[in-house]
Amino acid sequence: MTTVGSCALGVALMSDFPKLLDPDLALAGELFDQLAEETRKGDGIERDSYGAGEQAAHDIIRRAGEFLDLEIHTDAALNLYLTYPGTDRSLPSMIIGSHLDSVPQGGNFDGAAGVVAGLAVFAGFRRSDYFPPCDVTVMAIRAEEAVWFDVPYIGSYAAFGELPAKSLEVTRSDSGRSLAEHMGEAGCNLDAIRAGEAYLHSEQLRAYMELHIEQGPSLVNFNRPVGIVSAIRGNLRYRNARCLGQYGHSGALSRGQRRDAVAATTALIHHLNQTWDHFDAGNHDLVFTVGELTTDPAFHGPSKVAGETRFVLDFRSTDEKVMHRMAKYAEQEAERLEEDAGVTFDLGTPSFCEAAQMDEEIIAELGSLAEELKISAVKMPSGAGHDAVVFANFGVPSAMIFVRNQHGSHNPKESMNMSDFSKAARLLSAYLITMLD
Amino acid sequence: MTTVGSCALGVALMSDFPKLLDPDLALAGELFDQLAEETRKGDGIERDSYGAGEQAAHDIIRRAGEFLDLEIHTDAALNLYLTYPGTDRSLPSMIIGSHLDSVPQGGNFDGAAGVVAGLAVFAGFRRSDYFPPCDVTVMAIRAEEAVWFDVPYIGSYAAFGELPAKSLEVTRSDSGRSLAEHMGEAGCNLDAIRAGEAYLHSEQLRAYMELHIEQGPSLVNFNRPVGIVSAIRGNLRYRNARCLGQYGHSGALSRGQRRDAVAATTALIHHLNQTWDHFDAGNHDLVFTVGELTTDPAFHGPSKVAGETRFVLDFRSTDEKVMHRMAKYAEQEAERLEEDAGVTFDLGTPSFCEAAQMDEEIIAELGSLAEELKISAVKMPSGAGHDAVVFANFGVPSAMIFVRNQHGSHNPKESMNMSDFSKAARLLSAYLITMLD
Repeated sequence: MTTVGSCALGVALMSDFPKLLDPDLALAGELFDQLAEETRKGDGIERDSYGAGEQAAHDIIRRAGEFLDLEIHTDAALNLYLTYPGTDRSLPSMIIGSHLDSVPQGGNFDGAAGVVAGLAVFAGFRRSDYFPPCDVTVMAIRAEEAVWFDVPYIGSYAAFGELPAKSLEVTRSDSGRSLAEHMGEAGCNLDAIRAGEAYLHSEQLRAYMELHIEQGPSLVNFNRPVGIVSAIRGNLRYRNARCLGQYGHSGALSRGQRRDAVAATTALIHHLNQTWDHFDAGNHDLVFTVGELTTDPAFHGPSKVAGETRFVLDFRSTDEKVMHRMAKYAEQEAERLEEDAGVTFDLGTPSFCEAAQMDEEIIAELGSLAEELKISAVKMPSGAGHDAVVFANFGVPSAMIFVRNQHGSHNPKESMNMSDFSKAARLLSAYLITMLD
Repeated sequence: MTTVGSCALGVALMSDFPKLLDPDLALAGELFDQLAEETRKGDGIERDSYGAGEQAAHDIIRRAGEFLDLEIHTDAALNLYLTYPGTDRSLPSMIIGSHLDSVPQGGNFDGAAGVVAGLAVFAGFRRSDYFPPCDVTVMAIRAEEAVWFDVPYIGSYAAFGELPAKSLEVTRSDSGRSLAEHMGEAGCNLDAIRAGEAYLHSEQLRAYMELHIEQGPSLVNFNRPVGIVSAIRGNLRYRNARCLGQYGHSGALSRGQRRDAVAATTALIHHLNQTWDHFDAGNHDLVFTVGELTTDPAFHGPSKVAGETRFVLDFRSTDEKVMHRMAKYAEQEAERLEEDAGVTFDLGTPSFCEAAQMDEEIIAELGSLAEELKISAVKMPSGAGHDAVVFANFGVPSAMIFVRNQHGSHNPKESMNMSDFSKAARLLSAYLITMLD
């Protein structure tokens, strides 16, 4: 791989090939509009994994691929590959990937922006009759949003032939039918998936690049259009934690007579938040969230000591050791509170999504290119998970470019300025042009 | 009133009148059975305030009053008065009162035990052809359980002509129809209630005595059959408290970027529990409970920072100053957390039920009698509210006798041994016999 110094675009290239560097924003705008029109539902966007919404998006992107005269393939899981041939087709190829599915009542850009950016870059290449040094493939990935099936990175794992068989039996949250049924209905080759047949092989891949809207407000707060991702946080989650105490009359039970599930649970959560403060103070990457917390509406009452709580503990970090330390602390603290408060915690078995480090060399190269292109970029971790985790952890040098986004993601209000999108796509384009120079 | 020393039963009385002191347990058992049979619903007991269940219980008790040849009256609110005439009918009378309604899926003894005890004592008097020094009235009180109408002590306040007019407009939790409608349907005289006509006048009442099962496990834990209540806790409650933050992606928001309603709410509750510890250490009577706590199921999620919580803060104490101090602390602490966590607390306007002190002289007398009768009794506060609060705060010397009860109250499993009930009823009987000696 070209090093930072030698890959510099140089003033010459910037003035010689301005059009080459410019992604086709008209095409991008048209694609975003089509996606919004054909997958709108209520106030938001809905592209359900292996459902009609996701398929509509794939159809739009496939037609754009035909329009740009790209080589088009799908794999057993119906990931869509649109390839722009390079000057030396024997070289390991490059993937520009992102997913096309969305959460229910999501926004138009989470996922789709990365695929559209790849096509806009290709359109820029076509316009200048430019061929990159190696094959570059836009990959429209299936089923990244684990909200439909509680399985991470279905499309990416399947592309590498590594989707666990038991994942196929997981049911979709709305339909109650299995992933296998939904995939079969969509036209997937389930035999090949079950046999673990790989479409992608990491040794044949030069790099994986993913452009994505930032899902938090950091770029808005930093006033920067573009982020270069340093690492992607993993996730250790107790999805179905419970605390069991005993219901009783709130007036009639003294402190020592209570087995109060709310008192114990709020103590646990508060202590975990205090521990997070210590990790923050020590500059360890960590976020801790309790997104769901409820007493039981069938049994709770304003005059009752609560006999049960249900809650989620969600730890995320780019450093897996940090997540495991928090998990251990949570379990120890729960055990201590059981003795103190006479309750029983059942945290359940945590689920675990691995963290991933982005490729140092690509990061440095992107930073350097951004500087040359006068794109104000900042290096930052990604809090949310992305398909890049799978590619990175299968040994493919991977990188992510974040685009500033207002109002967060996973909601109808997410929004991205096309001028920010254009800067991020230019950076991607510049990387492709310079990578073998 | 007779003082402790001079009212002693003495060994002579105990041997002379063993039957007189013994409540009629056969009658009591029969009444409990009838009540259970005629008001059973599913696993539990249901005697809905001003509904068919409560009326069925009143009918049973009225028939028992007729059987015992008692004078029978009702007031405008359909409280039922069964009077055993005393030797001097011009003297202020004594009330043995309790309620006959129950919570939904309640038990057979909460409320009813006090009325049944009064009748069992009267049956003992009839058997011995004994007349107490003054009139004694068993009062079967209406609508004590505020679960049906969110109004405290409806029957008691109405008996004193002090039920607030606006209470009549409160709707029943299940039917959605107003208290006035339900009372009208039951046959109440709404004009008299609205006009504030009093059936009871505190200056004409010598004392109010209420026998009730203990709703907590203290007597079980202390291994005592009987409790003598020192005071009844009042209640200061924020019924509809909320914390408003902002929803966001759990992975993408650092600590400082969050407005996390769960983190702020759990901190508030935990700090209030710590403050309760300080009050406990200082021997201030207090209980603090969060019986309901929920994020919003329509918007929460395992990967979302929570934008809203709803919860109840319930403070109870025999000392109203303690409740007001806790309320002030809760509001100050919420304000501090608003600044720290970028959230908004809306605790709402608290409801307030007054506390009441039981009569010191009657307490001492009951203690002394229990000792003579070798009934193992303990002085204790009542955590739950009772009609005795209304009588005490209208200036009637009031007292409560608690009976040991397994499994708490307000549930189908509440249970009371008849031998414990018998001891408490004997103590009540002994008090009536000795009060004017």
